[in-house]
Amino acid sequence: MPSPASLWFGGDYNPDQWPEPVWDEDMRLMRQAGVTLATVGVFSWSLLEPEEDRYTFDWLDRVLDLLHANGISACLATPTASPPPWFTLAHPDALPVTADGVRLTHGSRDTYDVCAPAYREASLRITRALAERYAHHPALALWHVHNEYGTHTYGEHAARAFRTWLRGRYGSLATLNDAWTTAFWGQRYSDWEQIHPPRATQYLPNPAHLLDFRRFLSDAMRGHYCAQRDILRAANPDVPVTTNFAFGSWVPVDPWRWAADLDLVAVDVYPDATGEAAAHQHAFAADLARSWGGGRPWLLMEQATGYLGARVRPKAPGEIIRHSLSHVARGSRGAMFFQWRASVGGAEQWHPAMLPHTGADSPVFAEVCELGALLGRLAEVQDTRVVEDAAVVWDPESWWALQSPSLPSPDLDYLAAVRQVHRVLWRQGRTVAFVSPHSPMPDLPLLVVPLLYLTSAATARFLADYAEQGGILVVTYGSGTADEHARVWPGGYPGALRDLLGVRALQHYPLDPAVDAVTVCGEDGEYWGRARRWSEELDVADAKVVARYADGPFAGRAAVTRVGRGAGQAWYVSCDLEDAGLGKVLSRAGLSGGTATPPAVEVVHRDSRDEQWVFVLNHGNGPVTGADLGLAVESREVLSGVSGAALVVPAGGVAVLRGPRRP
Amino acid sequence: MPSPASLWFGGDYNPDQWPEPVWDEDMRLMRQAGVTLATVGVFSWSLLEPEEDRYTFDWLDRVLDLLHANGISACLATPTASPPPWFTLAHPDALPVTADGVRLTHGSRDTYDVCAPAYREASLRITRALAERYAHHPALALWHVHNEYGTHTYGEHAARAFRTWLRGRYGSLATLNDAWTTAFWGQRYSDWEQIHPPRATQYLPNPAHLLDFRRFLSDAMRGHYCAQRDILRAANPDVPVTTNFAFGSWVPVDPWRWAADLDLVAVDVYPDATGEAAAHQHAFAADLARSWGGGRPWLLMEQATGYLGARVRPKAPGEIIRHSLSHVARGSRGAMFFQWRASVGGAEQWHPAMLPHTGADSPVFAEVCELGALLGRLAEVQDTRVVEDAAVVWDPESWWALQSPSLPSPDLDYLAAVRQVHRVLWRQGRTVAFVSPHSPMPDLPLLVVPLLYLTSAATARFLADYAEQGGILVVTYGSGTADEHARVWPGGYPGALRDLLGVRALQHYPLDPAVDAVTVCGEDGEYWGRARRWSEELDVADAKVVARYADGPFAGRAAVTRVGRGAGQAWYVSCDLEDAGLGKVLSRAGLSGGTATPPAVEVVHRDSRDEQWVFVLNHGNGPVTGADLGLAVESREVLSGVSGAALVVPAGGVAVLRGPRRP
Amino acid sequence: MPSPASLWFGGDYNPDQWPEPVWDEDMRLMRQAGVTLATVGVFSWSLLEPEEDRYTFDWLDRVLDLLHANGISACLATPTASPPPWFTLAHPDALPVTADGVRLTHGSRDTYDVCAPAYREASLRITRALAERYAHHPALALWHVHNEYGTHTYGEHAARAFRTWLRGRYGSLATLNDAWTTAFWGQRYSDWEQIHPPRATQYLPNPAHLLDFRRFLSDAMRGHYCAQRDILRAANPDVPVTTNFAFGSWVPVDPWRWAADLDLVAVDVYPDATGEAAAHQHAFAADLARSWGGGRPWLLMEQATGYLGARVRPKAPGEIIRHSLSHVARGSRGAMFFQWRASVGGAEQWHPAMLPHTGADSPVFAEVCELGALLGRLAEVQDTRVVEDAAVVWDPESWWALQSPSLPSPDLDYLAAVRQVHRVLWRQGRTVAFVSPHSPMPDLPLLVVPLLYLTSAATARFLADYAEQGGILVVTYGSGTADEHARVWPGGYPGALRDLLGVRALQHYPLDPAVDAVTVCGEDGEYWGRARRWSEELDVADAKVVARYADGPFAGRAAVTRVGRGAGQAWYVSCDLEDAGLGKVLSRAGLSGGTATPPAVEVVHRDSRDEQWVFVLNHGNGPVTGADLGLAVESREVLSGVSGAALVVPAGGVAVLRGPRRP
Repeated sequence: MPSPASLWFGGDYNPDQWPEPVWDEDMRLMRQAGVTLATVGVFSWSLLEPEEDRYTFDWLDRVLDLLHANGISACLATPTASPPPWFTLAHPDALPVTADGVRLTHGSRDTYDVCAPAYREASLRITRALAERYAHHPALALWHVHNEYGTHTYGEHAARAFRTWLRGRYGSLATLNDAWTTAFWGQRYSDWEQIHPPRATQYLPNPAHLLDFRRFLSDAMRGHYCAQRDILRAANPDVPVTTNFAFGSWVPVDPWRWAADLDLVAVDVYPDATGEAAAHQHAFAADLARSWGGGRPWLLMEQATGYLGARVRPKAPGEIIRHSLSHVARGSRGAMFFQWRASVGGAEQWHPAMLPHTGADSPVFAEVCELGALLGRLAEVQDTRVVEDAAVVWDPESWWALQSPSLPSPDLDYLAAVRQVHRVLWRQGRTVAFVSPHSPMPDLPLLVVPLLYLTSAATARFLADYAEQGGILVVTYGSGTADEHARVWPGGYPGALRDLLGVRALQHYPLDPAVDAVTVCGEDGEYWGRARRWSEELDVADAKVVARYADGPFAGRAAVTRVGRGAGQAWYVSCDLEDAGLGKVLSRAGLSGGTATPPAVEVVHRDSRDEQWVFVLNHGNGPVTGADLGLAVESREVLSGVSGAALVVPAGGVAVLRGPRRP
Repeated sequence: MPSPASLWFGGDYNPDQWPEPVWDEDMRLMRQAGVTLATVGVFSWSLLEPEEDRYTFDWLDRVLDLLHANGISACLATPTASPPPWFTLAHPDALPVTADGVRLTHGSRDTYDVCAPAYREASLRITRALAERYAHHPALALWHVHNEYGTHTYGEHAARAFRTWLRGRYGSLATLNDAWTTAFWGQRYSDWEQIHPPRATQYLPNPAHLLDFRRFLSDAMRGHYCAQRDILRAANPDVPVTTNFAFGSWVPVDPWRWAADLDLVAVDVYPDATGEAAAHQHAFAADLARSWGGGRPWLLMEQATGYLGARVRPKAPGEIIRHSLSHVARGSRGAMFFQWRASVGGAEQWHPAMLPHTGADSPVFAEVCELGALLGRLAEVQDTRVVEDAAVVWDPESWWALQSPSLPSPDLDYLAAVRQVHRVLWRQGRTVAFVSPHSPMPDLPLLVVPLLYLTSAATARFLADYAEQGGILVVTYGSGTADEHARVWPGGYPGALRDLLGVRALQHYPLDPAVDAVTVCGEDGEYWGRARRWSEELDVADAKVVARYADGPFAGRAAVTRVGRGAGQAWYVSCDLEDAGLGKVLSRAGLSGGTATPPAVEVVHRDSRDEQWVFVLNHGNGPVTGADLGLAVESREVLSGVSGAALVVPAGGVAVLRGPRRP
Repeated sequence: MPSPASLWFGGDYNPDQWPEPVWDEDMRLMRQAGVTLATVGVFSWSLLEPEEDRYTFDWLDRVLDLLHANGISACLATPTASPPPWFTLAHPDALPVTADGVRLTHGSRDTYDVCAPAYREASLRITRALAERYAHHPALALWHVHNEYGTHTYGEHAARAFRTWLRGRYGSLATLNDAWTTAFWGQRYSDWEQIHPPRATQYLPNPAHLLDFRRFLSDAMRGHYCAQRDILRAANPDVPVTTNFAFGSWVPVDPWRWAADLDLVAVDVYPDATGEAAAHQHAFAADLARSWGGGRPWLLMEQATGYLGARVRPKAPGEIIRHSLSHVARGSRGAMFFQWRASVGGAEQWHPAMLPHTGADSPVFAEVCELGALLGRLAEVQDTRVVEDAAVVWDPESWWALQSPSLPSPDLDYLAAVRQVHRVLWRQGRTVAFVSPHSPMPDLPLLVVPLLYLTSAATARFLADYAEQGGILVVTYGSGTADEHARVWPGGYPGALRDLLGVRALQHYPLDPAVDAVTVCGEDGEYWGRARRWSEELDVADAKVVARYADGPFAGRAAVTRVGRGAGQAWYVSCDLEDAGLGKVLSRAGLSGGTATPPAVEVVHRDSRDEQWVFVLNHGNGPVTGADLGLAVESREVLSGVSGAALVVPAGGVAVLRGPRRP
């Protein structure tokens, strides 16, 4: 898709919650803030189609016209994430059913059964109606299908669709029985009709059954998306189509499998921590979003002007800008928020907004205006490329598999493990490309594979190829354990990667993070720190020991190893090292790349053919200078015009440098 | 209603659990203890009506006759809180349904659907039968309708009744849609039939929906009560009718809306703490019960001789007497217990009783007898009036609203906030009148408004009038936030009270009580202590700063303010101060009133035209003298005859002084 | 049953999970390990009967023939613990229903309704088919009915069967109403049809209802077992029949009532702790299993080669052997494991196995082989008798009763209390016989009765008889409280045992173990340590005070008492003493018996007419010598031939001495 004339800045706009006189104030304040894009209609189904096949588009006409008149583009949503009460009353079978068999009721959002034919039909009807009316509206810049796909359902519609999906995947019951190891506990299926979603059962469920159901749900939601997209695209092929992935501590769908169906990836990012951890989570999400699209355009569709979570708190001054810039630096076409004006009622009345309950005379709105002005100067960055220094494998299927109740430890936290690797690299000044385990690995000098529980033979081959072709591969504990059906690779851990890594683990020893820790020291005796959650009794085949356990059940045995493979290397980290220890591994393994930056200063480079842009985000408590950062003296800060040499970025501040590309 | 000849003393009496020879021992021991009132029949439905419309009253005839013969009055209950198994088997639709759709089963108590026609009909049938037979029985002193109304239900009967109630409240769907902000998440209703109870749904529920459902349930239970009361009153207008409100850490109904329908308010009080905290909770509940009835007669219908909770423990020696006297001092017509004789079986077999499992030869029964003797000397106190020093707004609707999952903090604990204000005043020797937010405020010198999350425009007007007419108003954090539909008042917190208080909060900053605290100091630099859970970034309009945050996110900004309004003042406390800090506010704001008492000594005054009674409850570890308490020298202790001047109340002891009223 | 030629050693063998080439490797490795018995078919229903009444026995024929050809016996299971998917699809009414009314679905194991006629019929059909085909197979050594009976169900089948069971138990509704105290809360039943399983209800359930439902479920499962056993026994009376009891922190059935129906008791033992606590739990389970069968042959049917629980961990070197030997020492006919070869898929893919994922080249398999060799030398121990030193009452019904939500404390942990008594005796070197409370007490010098909440009049008589006939009886807190219907014995605690013990408790005072503790000192002032969870205000009748509370609510009052009764004594411990204090009681009370052993060394004696065997398990960190243990010099270690005098058992090691019986 072509770059928009300026970066997108704005948020969800729900004028239907307000009387029309407020709309005029909205336009005035949006212009004041520099808003360029408003997301409309996400939850408007009950207003747009108050009864089956009768539409009330007049208010939306006025909204879109008003936006257009004020020079603001529209990201128009299909409202299918929240069907109207009349619909679910008419089609109770289209309500989701929990694993316990509870049929849910309307009264919230996301209460739909993505597998229900009536819901599918109604979704496409409203989509067609919107497409017919608005596909060529001059304000329309982007279609936003649905919202944060993610509702699970275990009812009969899901059962039928799951069986069809399984037939497609396995062909025969014999293959499925083998893949799922149904011989265990005598659950061999003799007819497809015997297979249900993983509903409530007496004791532990089958892990392969759980895993395939997650894959199926992701595909079922993707099917629902694609059907809408096809209608929208047919109505006007020039308007890009997306949906917004929820991203946080859950991953309802597999974005790798969706990306090809999106004109641009869009994500909603709500960190579950504050301060530096929040800054890192934004960078992490941004790298993921860019990577899902393979570097194509993407968009931060939602973030908040404050912290959500158990307690809704304001962000510290400057954080709204820094978090937004972190995304833009990493490739987002802009910075969008949920939502423009804070709702006074409804379930999210306390969700922070660009225009808070307190109104325009508020610290939040002031920073929003400052952000708008800043983004207004950065349109040209869209034509540059994010410079990446390292790759990390990210696998939602392993994440799902690690949510099984049948694991050697409840502490195998996939998100935490991947976040940790990214955080250590982020602090080392490296910009990460995430990669799928199902494709050849990219041409980057360092590849980290954290906790890749599911490792197919193909993945093992991709990793081996990477090392043999000169890459430095770092694999961490728990990887290589099971195949794509969650079956343990026999013969010794790390299973599928044993030969590549030159080690063989005889036994796992999960540690209780509340009470246990083991010490790891380098071969030279240097203290590397503690490991928690996991350790392994490692036999070294042809690898070299880099660090050992200094205490614990396997004191004296190898903890970290390295082996040459072809032109490259393969490292293995057999335990859950704390950041310091993992940092030692990654800085020793990663020979080049990364920018030495002062602590808590985030630096991202963007290249075009001739130019280099440098984003500097100072999350720390003291100022940082251009010299500290090694900035090119001839570069200029975009807003102030100060040279890279003279630049001082105050605590909490940001700078965007632009200069000639260095050779 | 006229005062009974003596204070009521006794408890629930369940002779149906025992063979008749035990009844004779009961009568002997009741006489020994000085029992004057026995509550009978609360759970006797299955015995009184063993099949539909067939009654077995003979045993109850004998019980009432026996009580009468022994000079004991009866508080006769309608047994509708526990329908018989035959009833629910015949009418499964009269069983309550959970939000998840689980239809509950008999086997416990309280298992009824107050909205089910069959249950309503059966309730009135047994009530009529009891009224016909016993309305003129000489033992009958009081009707006790049902027991601790409080069962929620989400089934179809409730749905129908809820819709009717909503039509009455809102008139039109447009009004309801607006009040509930159903535009949010596209939940606009186009037909009343689309509205359900707040059943299980996919994500967050609508807070206004939740709130109205609580209001509806309270009204539905009140309707059930009134229908019974009308039958009982018609049978004999001279016998007062009540029901017992459960009071503890929940509030299933809104007592303000019920009080006019009760001939006297009755409450069940089970503290959830021990020692001084329990003593305070009794005083708190007693002030509430008196206030609900607007100062009319009321009754402590149930308490326990020991502590309930996770662990059932004995009360310390003297506590049974002190807790009972605290209620009597504050206006109760007596002191009743659940129950007379401890059950050997059933779900409450471990509930403490007046006559415990160990029998009459026990410390508990000895103190019960002592209490009976004491109460026997206090009949005349019924003709005096409790002297009140301060008012506190108490609002069950705000409590319900603060149970929503959609709040800026999970730590906004309404009960704790009101209890804290009452506790601080109690320790300052003030006797509190609680007031509803929905009426003009009373003529008392100090009015405290803790955490009044819901503040309608009318309430804001009542509070402003109070201050303008010379009252000292103290409002604490979280008040004024939302209107009666739980919609946030825009423009800055504390919303509806912003102008009255002369402040505007730009942002909330909820604190995590487990880890956060901020320091508050007076304008003179005096250390006021810490605040937890909540703080606010406050802009001061025309108010004067009384105390400031000394650290935390808003260090240096106002924490407590004061502004003159007409003849009075309006204070604002923007954070959750600990007791010491709140004590400073209340002692500085409240210019007069209260009795300076030694720590842990509870003193309550009662006035008649000529006389003053003083109740002294020594919860402390040392003796206290009449001089310590400033008792009038001419007053006399009711039991001992000792003069106020010579009085010494030992640790744990009580005294009741009677003397001429001082000018 | 006759002793097998050698001890049984092996595990669950599931060749149906593997291709046949693996079977040959299995045979080779089993022979290498010394396996003598393989449990087959436990979860093979869906494979053996792929559709109703069609059987595929060929693979099982091959497995049994292969075992036989390799000299390995078969423990052949009926597969009824895991019905095939086709069955539950055809008979959804045979699926269990939770108390909330959720009908569970297949997809795990144990998902059956033991009361469903269709399930009963299908169970007997597959049992008959197996019996017909294999009852005379030369490999067959033992029938294994079902697996770990324990699925609860609350549906209509259970309701009907429960009513029948109740009619049999109570005869009339009047008797049941009285036993259950249904007068409380008006739950009197007027028709048997009104009685349901204890399904979800509004508030607390009836404790007698809960208790009888547990009894009923145990009997219903026993009925299902017996029906299968009758078929198997009829097919070949020479093959013994058993089922394996799950034993851990739950007790789904009452083994005392089952034992007579089993040819040998079999148990599955999975400790919930590691190290010394695990060693003790194995000894505890072994003593229970031996006792359930009244000293008859029994078998450790399942254990794991590693620790299960939240984290799956390897056992320390030597623990597999020591844990197995502990069972054999205490009478097990061998040591079996779940399972032979670790599954790569399915819900228990991480369950440790004899042959782990890592294969034969692993520490686990090495220790398994060592164990096999050791057991191969111990066949003759089967003809000796375990020497027991003390008795402990163990009562699953009290355990069930103490799971009621209506107790004076949530901390009355029956399993912990009995385990503690056993642990203290185990550390004192005593071998315990557990006894049922429903039979005369055994002729052993010491009898401990921990927390026997339910104490019928008959049990009280058995205990009194024991003391009067010269036994030393030690009763701990909470005992004697209620009768067999969970009705509190009135008049003062410990109710039914008050006269026997010569004490009367006026009040309970449950302690909160998180914050409370009281100190107990001997009459001589000696510090005995702390008590937690429970204390009592004790009046001493004719008993003598042995120890007193030194602080807490009953400071100065008796804590431990002793009274002479006939030729014996009766002790009472009124609080939950820590191990040290309880150790003082038991070492003072128990005048003789036990073996003084070094700490952490477990010693068990076995006698035949002429010989004595001594098992020495060194759980400690240092070596122990024959002299330390007072071993007979003429005894010889079975494996090494070393004499008792010269014996040194290293840390973690074992020894089995055989010598002449000493007089």
